[in-house]
Amino acid sequence: MKWGIRIMPREVLLDSQGRAVEGLLKQNHFQLSTCRVGRYIELDLQETTEENAKIEIKKMLDFALYNPLIETYTIERLNL
Amino acid sequence: MKWGIRIMPREVLLDSQGRAVEGLLKQNHFQLSTCRVGRYIELDLQETTEENAKIEIKKMLDFALYNPLIETYTIERLNL
Repeated sequence: MKWGIRIMPREVLLDSQGRAVEGLLKQNHFQLSTCRVGRYIELDLQETTEENAKIEIKKMLDFALYNPLIETYTIERLNL
Repeated sequence: MKWGIRIMPREVLLDSQGRAVEGLLKQNHFQLSTCRVGRYIELDLQETTEENAKIEIKKMLDFALYNPLIETYTIERLNL
């Protein structure tokens, strides 16, 4: 079962990577208002049920994958 | 109009970040078969039509956001 986890910097924070990309694109005359940059993690789990998989993913997130002080995450099921 | 771009290392490549995360999780007794790590970019565009927005995003991708030799991307419309 494949899962995707999107981890983005919290809205209230200055996202330095996003600001850098935004600046570069604007300097080069691209039309955009904002840009934010985060991470995307694809996990392949052997869990049998969606519920168990989500519990397991949340444990992994808390363990090492994200920093709750500065980031938020969303989990999605992938059909690959 | 908000758009999300997922940029992942190509399947054929050794994804060193993903391998590191995978190793760490496995060492700590998490059950997973594989893990891949990529980037996620959120863009807010003023383009009026979906078609124009996608053309603009592809230009940005080619200009600076991804490396076609080692990465692939998918674009999705976000409802935020």
